[in-house]
Amino acid sequence: MSQKLLSQLAHVEILSPRPRETVEFLTGVLGLVESSRRGQSVFLRGWSEFFHHSLQVTEGETPGLGHIGWRAMGPEQLETAVARLQESGQGQGWHEGSAGHGPAYRYRAPHGGQLHEVFWEVERYRAPAGMRSTFPNRPQRHPDRGIATRYLDHVTVASRDIMADCLWYRDVLGHRLMEWTAPAADSDHCVFAMLSVCERSHDLGIVPDMSSVGGRINHVAFWLDQREDLRRASDLLLESGVAIEFGPGRHGMGEIDYVYFREPGGMRIELNSGTIRNYEPDWEPVKWTPEQGSNVFYRNVQFPTSMFETFPLAQAPEEHAATGVFH
Amino acid sequence: MSQKLLSQLAHVEILSPRPRETVEFLTGVLGLVESSRRGQSVFLRGWSEFFHHSLQVTEGETPGLGHIGWRAMGPEQLETAVARLQESGQGQGWHEGSAGHGPAYRYRAPHGGQLHEVFWEVERYRAPAGMRSTFPNRPQRHPDRGIATRYLDHVTVASRDIMADCLWYRDVLGHRLMEWTAPAADSDHCVFAMLSVCERSHDLGIVPDMSSVGGRINHVAFWLDQREDLRRASDLLLESGVAIEFGPGRHGMGEIDYVYFREPGGMRIELNSGTIRNYEPDWEPVKWTPEQGSNVFYRNVQFPTSMFETFPLAQAPEEHAATGVFH
Amino acid sequence: MSQKLLSQLAHVEILSPRPRETVEFLTGVLGLVESSRRGQSVFLRGWSEFFHHSLQVTEGETPGLGHIGWRAMGPEQLETAVARLQESGQGQGWHEGSAGHGPAYRYRAPHGGQLHEVFWEVERYRAPAGMRSTFPNRPQRHPDRGIATRYLDHVTVASRDIMADCLWYRDVLGHRLMEWTAPAADSDHCVFAMLSVCERSHDLGIVPDMSSVGGRINHVAFWLDQREDLRRASDLLLESGVAIEFGPGRHGMGEIDYVYFREPGGMRIELNSGTIRNYEPDWEPVKWTPEQGSNVFYRNVQFPTSMFETFPLAQAPEEHAATGVFH
Amino acid sequence: MSQKLLSQLAHVEILSPRPRETVEFLTGVLGLVESSRRGQSVFLRGWSEFFHHSLQVTEGETPGLGHIGWRAMGPEQLETAVARLQESGQGQGWHEGSAGHGPAYRYRAPHGGQLHEVFWEVERYRAPAGMRSTFPNRPQRHPDRGIATRYLDHVTVASRDIMADCLWYRDVLGHRLMEWTAPAADSDHCVFAMLSVCERSHDLGIVPDMSSVGGRINHVAFWLDQREDLRRASDLLLESGVAIEFGPGRHGMGEIDYVYFREPGGMRIELNSGTIRNYEPDWEPVKWTPEQGSNVFYRNVQFPTSMFETFPLAQAPEEHAATGVFH
Repeated sequence: MSQKLLSQLAHVEILSPRPRETVEFLTGVLGLVESSRRGQSVFLRGWSEFFHHSLQVTEGETPGLGHIGWRAMGPEQLETAVARLQESGQGQGWHEGSAGHGPAYRYRAPHGGQLHEVFWEVERYRAPAGMRSTFPNRPQRHPDRGIATRYLDHVTVASRDIMADCLWYRDVLGHRLMEWTAPAADSDHCVFAMLSVCERSHDLGIVPDMSSVGGRINHVAFWLDQREDLRRASDLLLESGVAIEFGPGRHGMGEIDYVYFREPGGMRIELNSGTIRNYEPDWEPVKWTPEQGSNVFYRNVQFPTSMFETFPLAQAPEEHAATGVFH
Repeated sequence: MSQKLLSQLAHVEILSPRPRETVEFLTGVLGLVESSRRGQSVFLRGWSEFFHHSLQVTEGETPGLGHIGWRAMGPEQLETAVARLQESGQGQGWHEGSAGHGPAYRYRAPHGGQLHEVFWEVERYRAPAGMRSTFPNRPQRHPDRGIATRYLDHVTVASRDIMADCLWYRDVLGHRLMEWTAPAADSDHCVFAMLSVCERSHDLGIVPDMSSVGGRINHVAFWLDQREDLRRASDLLLESGVAIEFGPGRHGMGEIDYVYFREPGGMRIELNSGTIRNYEPDWEPVKWTPEQGSNVFYRNVQFPTSMFETFPLAQAPEEHAATGVFH
Repeated sequence: MSQKLLSQLAHVEILSPRPRETVEFLTGVLGLVESSRRGQSVFLRGWSEFFHHSLQVTEGETPGLGHIGWRAMGPEQLETAVARLQESGQGQGWHEGSAGHGPAYRYRAPHGGQLHEVFWEVERYRAPAGMRSTFPNRPQRHPDRGIATRYLDHVTVASRDIMADCLWYRDVLGHRLMEWTAPAADSDHCVFAMLSVCERSHDLGIVPDMSSVGGRINHVAFWLDQREDLRRASDLLLESGVAIEFGPGRHGMGEIDYVYFREPGGMRIELNSGTIRNYEPDWEPVKWTPEQGSNVFYRNVQFPTSMFETFPLAQAPEEHAATGVFH
Repeated sequence: MSQKLLSQLAHVEILSPRPRETVEFLTGVLGLVESSRRGQSVFLRGWSEFFHHSLQVTEGETPGLGHIGWRAMGPEQLETAVARLQESGQGQGWHEGSAGHGPAYRYRAPHGGQLHEVFWEVERYRAPAGMRSTFPNRPQRHPDRGIATRYLDHVTVASRDIMADCLWYRDVLGHRLMEWTAPAADSDHCVFAMLSVCERSHDLGIVPDMSSVGGRINHVAFWLDQREDLRRASDLLLESGVAIEFGPGRHGMGEIDYVYFREPGGMRIELNSGTIRNYEPDWEPVKWTPEQGSNVFYRNVQFPTSMFETFPLAQAPEEHAATGVFH
């Protein structure tokens, strides 16, 4: 990879069969802020985010992924990315007229089938009068209610060939493969991988897909400022009647504190905090085995089987045959 | 700027008139780890850092700056950077034979006079047997003593023309100007600026230089994982007999929690934690005035005048004439 | 003292010239919960408190103290306390018909002049349906907005003879003198004292009163669960347009993290967290000097002079003559 | 109960078949401080504790409990307690010559069989010169290594009739029954109980004993200042090669964050932090069911069966028949 093409994970579109309840939960409990609505979509952002939105909620028959949006490093890098995508055979063509950003080139992951887009021009959020901060470097004031979710952090999708998708993302667009898990020390079979275009442990995770559905998502994650904020968030979730699927705890991979739960539309949401920082363009991926604490840093609990459900759901038997070692 | 040239702030060399005491403090109290020694220099790193070193302590007549090291994004970006530096007239030529990295091209900031270098090849730290971590993504085990300083975060230097240096760093090497302070809303005079090549609020800060000395440094900063860690660090510093010059507190700029103190050689050290994340290549710099909380987020204390001392010290009267609004 | 007479600081009544704004701030920003109203008073409590109220806000001409309420260890201990108070000559007689508790015996501190009361019977808070917690050991659900103030912690009053009042509280009612400050190591003049009937560093603080007003209060303090919560609270205060008078920081005395500000009626409020635990009936009081960090653990800032204002305000010149060493 | 008899849980004596390794772990990793040695015992304390010791490690054939020491409220309360114990038929007589405190009266819990003692006179710790703090209210300086365990918090023992023991502790000595768990809402069978003589959720816990062994202990717990400290402690434990049996997590009962592990002698140790405060002499005990989160506040994991092991170990089959609902 001769130059950096992508600057950041910019947004994720999720589908909800109960979009009104989904948006009420995401704004009322998680504290995401609504930017605008268009057609069957509502656009939301964390309170520290400068762009128009980082999450798009669109009505759909089942919980699932709409698309994943990446911002390029600049107009030239967008051109280069599009040329590489076309050459790779995975390009889908330009998509005009999205809310909050300029023309986007769309493409699909070869083995996971997820729809992605890359764009450069972006619309910035302008806080209405009552929501402006007293500090000039904040896009809006610190919310005084709910979990006050701060940033989109990552999205985790499924793939029928995790390592092949990792190499494709790396070779075509420059995603770095940071850490991955094999079932055993003498195995090269990848059952979970984390990719990053930034300093974080990952902005894109990949879990196994044992189905023939394609284009599936495991969860979308948002970042809170301090690890202790996850404890406060978990308390507020429970007091709101939301079951906590897993956590709060810590993943060994990325040294990330986590808590997982479902929004009313059925999609899994993660809140996370705390992570290592890595700025190395020539990073050598780290291989883990589950016994080392890849999933659970503390090495003393297992993922509940529900964590292996990805969306849209495939048949339960197929799903639960998965080797349960990703996070 | 057509492409990203620098991947990260890699190391800082500081000068100490009492190098033995300086190194004892940095390892025994701050918890930095010694990698090697060569000539009059000792090479240190934070426990989560993968490179050979992030801090070089060299014997000198007074506390001061040796040089600042940046890593390029790759060998091609190193070439581009060198060509731009030569064209800018600030290049000093290649420097061979440094510990821990390959050939480095050296240059000086036009108005601040600091010596910098940029390089690509890097030597990675290998923990000896007794210091290896049980987790494969750590370069060494988590230290069980002292402050357990995690990463080099930033260096803050002085300049006779802050904004002119900012534009030079930006135009030649692609540093982003993130936030800056003017004495008043109707002034364009820059009295403090923060530049960044990464997602953090800054890896390079610039304060005013009222002297004719040149090449001066205000402080070097290390990052701890959680804001609460600064409280623990401050307690340990006080119990070790180290006076705390300022803090713990929070800067409005960058939303950074801080604590400042001096190492035995006389240099100011900052520990910080918590910061905003910014991935925007086309970021519009944010202008602050001190009343908005640029220095002190809580807007209720002033910097002590000692904080305006930069190193090597110039005559006190000159120094204290500085408009005291940087952090 | 042959037996423990008082179980806890139960409530504080403050006076406000702007009671509506005071209550709106205490509920909307601090997150106290209103229990009931009666006459010119509104009764509030922290969300973890089981009694009817811990703070009573009553309309008054200036900010000031109404009274301080202590709960006895039992009905026998209440009788013993009343007998001792009558014997001391400071008793004022029984007060019937208060909201939220049974008959209370009132008395005045000999040198400070504050009105106190002691009682046994207490009314417990019953959360309405929508505010009940999912956890059976909580009096109500965890609030999802504002600062979510958890407990009343202490009240700090003024006295013309601090040490004489300390000994009176100790000898008559069993308050323990925990820590106190003298201006210098060779002085026995007490300029600040902390008394406690529980494991905390103090539930009653005493600062100097240089005026002839009498019955004055310096501040009332509420406790948050974790020290980091004070940082979140300070951020929310600033975003709400509330100036922070002092902090966040740490007192050496009691090892308490603090932040101070004023409510709209003019009274100083402290939020605090983190403290030592002390269960020793025969505790030997600890003497401090300011240089040791009695006020400011970090030993690097001074109290602003505004912190010496107690309520109702006396003439400013008298006030500011105080030796500024209390917290 | 007419008056408060006990001021605090003062110390616990544990037995270890590997006393040297046990003490090395408790001092080197947990950061307890050795006060003295006598015979087959080593006396340790947390760094914030003022008494001579809070933990006594004595050589024994298997891990187990030596005795539990409570301090009275004063010499009269000690007399009253002894009279009540003698009357109850559980008294064992006076024990002279213990290290660190005066004459102690010993007694046994009727259904659990644990040996307790109560005393008044106490020896206070004097830090040697190099360990003195710069703050006058600390018994020694803040340790700069290891987990820096701060206070003894509670001890959890086993009983063949939990509720009968609770009532005995309450009626004879004034322990308050704070919270307890029944297997179901319509059951009055107590499978875990928490008692307290202070403001904390408990200083004495009781789990079921299905064996005929008697006098058994489940764990001893130490308190860290902030909940976040448990995460740091867990990291240090793992890097030291210590497996974490359960946690870090939070109990619903007492709202206590926890982490459990074993010391080299085999005894279970808990570190905890964060808890509710309760000062009510007439507290009505709260009944929980496991589904409400009595054990696990987050309601999403189960205790591992190993957590039901109490010491000395009885036969495994008996042990694991226990209804697993205590913490």
